[in-house]
Amino acid sequence: MRDFSSNHEALSINTATLRKQWPLERIVEECARRGIRAISPWRDQVAQVGIGAVARQLKDAGIALSGYCRGGFFPAADEAGLARAIDDNRRAIDEAKRLNAPCLVLVVGSLPGALDGAPVHHDISRARGEVFEGIAKSLEYAIEADMPLAIEPLHPMQAADRACVNTLEQALDLCDALDPERARRLGVAVDLYHVWWDPKLERQIARAGRDRLLAYHVCDWLVPTKDLVCDRGMMGDGVIELKKCRQWVEEAGYTGFSEVEIFSDFWWSQPGERVLDTCIQRHRKCV
Amino acid sequence: MRDFSSNHEALSINTATLRKQWPLERIVEECARRGIRAISPWRDQVAQVGIGAVARQLKDAGIALSGYCRGGFFPAADEAGLARAIDDNRRAIDEAKRLNAPCLVLVVGSLPGALDGAPVHHDISRARGEVFEGIAKSLEYAIEADMPLAIEPLHPMQAADRACVNTLEQALDLCDALDPERARRLGVAVDLYHVWWDPKLERQIARAGRDRLLAYHVCDWLVPTKDLVCDRGMMGDGVIELKKCRQWVEEAGYTGFSEVEIFSDFWWSQPGERVLDTCIQRHRKCV
Repeated sequence: MRDFSSNHEALSINTATLRKQWPLERIVEECARRGIRAISPWRDQVAQVGIGAVARQLKDAGIALSGYCRGGFFPAADEAGLARAIDDNRRAIDEAKRLNAPCLVLVVGSLPGALDGAPVHHDISRARGEVFEGIAKSLEYAIEADMPLAIEPLHPMQAADRACVNTLEQALDLCDALDPERARRLGVAVDLYHVWWDPKLERQIARAGRDRLLAYHVCDWLVPTKDLVCDRGMMGDGVIELKKCRQWVEEAGYTGFSEVEIFSDFWWSQPGERVLDTCIQRHRKCV
Repeated sequence: MRDFSSNHEALSINTATLRKQWPLERIVEECARRGIRAISPWRDQVAQVGIGAVARQLKDAGIALSGYCRGGFFPAADEAGLARAIDDNRRAIDEAKRLNAPCLVLVVGSLPGALDGAPVHHDISRARGEVFEGIAKSLEYAIEADMPLAIEPLHPMQAADRACVNTLEQALDLCDALDPERARRLGVAVDLYHVWWDPKLERQIARAGRDRLLAYHVCDWLVPTKDLVCDRGMMGDGVIELKKCRQWVEEAGYTGFSEVEIFSDFWWSQPGERVLDTCIQRHRKCV
């Protein structure tokens, strides 16, 4: 297992971690100042600055991407909605390519309308079918663009509204069905916050292997957790066995970045400098 | 599939649904008045009244149990704690027997101390091992007492503090290991709130079959869900496909009660009469 204790070469910052404090330019600037070598930005943050400017700033700062957030949200109320989702995923693939991302992360979506509290139907099997079709269609375009797609299984508590792919096993079943050659065109983003609880985690990480492990995200699970979306913990403040899980991932062949992604009302209320410094410190000590 | 629309013969009320409004005697009284034929009471509610008095009242009212809540919470910080948990489960088995429960429901526990926000360790594999041992030991006693044990997989969002058995598959793996004869001594309590999201739900219900399906709980998953414990929905107010799931359970051979268990700050704030009447009405319409 790599030694993270003496430097933060492997650290990447998912820019959602600082979305309430700073615009993307400032996040990049502050990361560069601290010798952070990678980020994973969100589309809305990129759009705010302009993708050309972001690409230039990253190049000048020598900062790489560990992923691009995000494609997905395939299920829709009707055919037109499904088609719009495919179009939108193509644009996301183009943007990821422009920014030299190693993969586009897919949060696949679930019951249409549920995120606004008004699901238009309750058929999660239908949503899963639409996700399958949506990924299949996006994959053709992604292969042409040479941009790997990383399916991110989300915690089952987000199954209704954000993603109906909820275990690593389910994500890997999708990968096996759509990319049986394991040619690093379709894989998974393993975010420990979503999968830490899974009794099959170790086995499924081994099954994923180097070919399917396209991204690795860390934070922590707090006890108690007070909100289903915005109460993630800083590494070391919760119960996830971060080092044990990283060992599994590295034994499976993963050698990429370890990306910190913390959606947290608490950390969003703190000065950005403090958040970034804490990420670095905890990444050395706890990840 | 049984027709629930014209009567509520199959309805059972888990008494936690009304724990903030009424003591157990009053719950039994109000259920009897409405022709409800079964309840599933909690140990603390029974203890408050005295088990003898509860047994008599149930007998007089002609109300059966659909289960007894609950045993479990096996993992502990040390050997003494593990032994205390086994003792406590034996007492729960005795109580279940005294009340003629068809099964003792097991919420198995997880990281010791986590429920108080202070986990003494973070090793969920260790907790899972202790759960295995705890159920094995309790099962010997349960078999002597002829009291089936029903493992209840809890939602993964409760994996750290309440139960480290988080999928039906995991619960059934435990059953297969500890009761390979499938002699209705060890089975599962399927609470849709905890398992509805699972892409393997249908297959695992079929795998469970009549021998392992010892209890069936319903409520609903709200979008958005605002609390990890106390924001369950009334049937029909959320996104769980209640009828589809009941069809799977009945196709697998389940013929028992359909038990309404709603932990909800909202429903606890409503008059008990309104809650019970709504349970009956929604059970006919939505379950």
